[in-house]
Amino acid sequence: MKHTFNIHENRFAECRHEIVGIVTEVGSKVEKFKVGDRVGVGCMVGACHSCDSCDNDLENYCPRMILTYGAPYHDGTNTYGGYSDVMVAEERYVVRIPDNLPLDAGAPLLCAGITVYSPLQHFGLTKPGMHVGVVGLGGLGHVAVKFAKGFGVKVTVISTSPSKKKEAIEHLGADYFLVSRDPDQMQAAMGTMDGIIDTVSAVHPLLPLIGLLKSQGKLVMVGAPNRPLELPVFPLLMGRKVVAGSCIGGMKETQEMIDFAGKHNITADVEVIPMDYVNTAMERLEKADVRYRFVIDIGNTLKSA
Amino acid sequence: MKHTFNIHENRFAECRHEIVGIVTEVGSKVEKFKVGDRVGVGCMVGACHSCDSCDNDLENYCPRMILTYGAPYHDGTNTYGGYSDVMVAEERYVVRIPDNLPLDAGAPLLCAGITVYSPLQHFGLTKPGMHVGVVGLGGLGHVAVKFAKGFGVKVTVISTSPSKKKEAIEHLGADYFLVSRDPDQMQAAMGTMDGIIDTVSAVHPLLPLIGLLKSQGKLVMVGAPNRPLELPVFPLLMGRKVVAGSCIGGMKETQEMIDFAGKHNITADVEVIPMDYVNTAMERLEKADVRYRFVIDIGNTLKSA
Repeated sequence: MKHTFNIHENRFAECRHEIVGIVTEVGSKVEKFKVGDRVGVGCMVGACHSCDSCDNDLENYCPRMILTYGAPYHDGTNTYGGYSDVMVAEERYVVRIPDNLPLDAGAPLLCAGITVYSPLQHFGLTKPGMHVGVVGLGGLGHVAVKFAKGFGVKVTVISTSPSKKKEAIEHLGADYFLVSRDPDQMQAAMGTMDGIIDTVSAVHPLLPLIGLLKSQGKLVMVGAPNRPLELPVFPLLMGRKVVAGSCIGGMKETQEMIDFAGKHNITADVEVIPMDYVNTAMERLEKADVRYRFVIDIGNTLKSA
Repeated sequence: MKHTFNIHENRFAECRHEIVGIVTEVGSKVEKFKVGDRVGVGCMVGACHSCDSCDNDLENYCPRMILTYGAPYHDGTNTYGGYSDVMVAEERYVVRIPDNLPLDAGAPLLCAGITVYSPLQHFGLTKPGMHVGVVGLGGLGHVAVKFAKGFGVKVTVISTSPSKKKEAIEHLGADYFLVSRDPDQMQAAMGTMDGIIDTVSAVHPLLPLIGLLKSQGKLVMVGAPNRPLELPVFPLLMGRKVVAGSCIGGMKETQEMIDFAGKHNITADVEVIPMDYVNTAMERLEKADVRYRFVIDIGNTLKSA
């Protein structure tokens, strides 16, 4: 099966794996797609298909999962993600993009979207009336707010930056905003949340976040700090609380996520750039100067760059 | 309702709340018990009965839960646990001891037993064929092995002390024994466990334990180290693993636990002592010189002491 993608998106900083485009060719055994379909490829392009994880549609936790960028593929060649105007992928790793979702703003959902959708689902944080916190308002956090609101839960954004309050509430639709450095605000919110999606990948304290949880509450980490965090155990015990990790999602769930996004008109906030802007974009990423994802228009700008 | 208890058990070191005896008197509104019944009282003797936790039979997580020892009771007096030959308790906080369970060796189940039974149940670690690790082989750990075997799961004891292997396997019935300080043994067991009950209350590394878990595995802490532990986040993410806390259990579940113990003949290993031995017992506890719980025979020895 061969797909040609006309628009690619990349989180240069780490991933290169939120890729969308139009199918230009299909192999003889392809059943799910035909030429002209709007499709996407996310973080992975292969797995073993024989382990417990694969059997349970959790290819993302297969020990032999193949990343879309920078990993050895089945044939021994390296994967290069979406930095190309053509891409070939096995249909299991391709999702259909709903007709109403724009390709550019839909692309980041293939990593950022599934990264937050999967733990909301898996850890049971989708029931209307629940209260979910989102820590950090970046590429992951801003779509976490949108998906949580899509499920109908009450959402509080927790951030170190008071300046993000207006954006969180007026633009993204969060219900509340908590400044994590304000002890009074944090104290007032203690014990009010059913779950928290923590998107922060810098080292940060967990104790205040655990304190925000109700009994049985769940703190789910989707960012990966490069050093261990301090885990206070007693506060976990006293409310049977959970600290968990979650990493993207399986392909079946990724399709469910993008269908849900289509139904609820959820997209990422993106800035579409031409290929010859990538070096400038990298410099801006270093300064976190993007709201919230750059998307490269490969199809229209690669050849001229 | 008034109960007189003829045998009391106490973990002097911290609890004073594993108390058993015979009912000598009941109040006019008592429905569950009659004079002569064999009963027990565990860690708590009251709660608010109006919060979400109480409504869900989780009095143990009620913010107004009243500890059996050293807490202000409803009437403003202090609770004193089982250091007495008579005790009065509300029937909600009293469990029936199955006829076949000896009172002395059954007593420690009221804290140690429910502490390990509840997380095995709640975190779904009871399915035959599963593999559960038990870290630490003390008062909690030794009954964790017995309950896990009662559920029919495969049990591995993880300990720093190779000398406990014979005890773990031959006496307690564990299937395997892992020396946590032996990197080769630990490496060989990586990714094999569905869950781990961690009973250790000293500061210890979590990374090797998280490594022992399969994808979706759960590490449940039931001991409370007095300093935060180091939590490596990336290994949690890569297998959607969970680190959780759990603290005793609700009264409904405590009755279920003791009934399960009766059905499977599960008791704690105890050393029954007279009241006048308590100071010596305290000294021996300091040296961890007890296998695994002291039980004071209050009924027969209090008056003479």
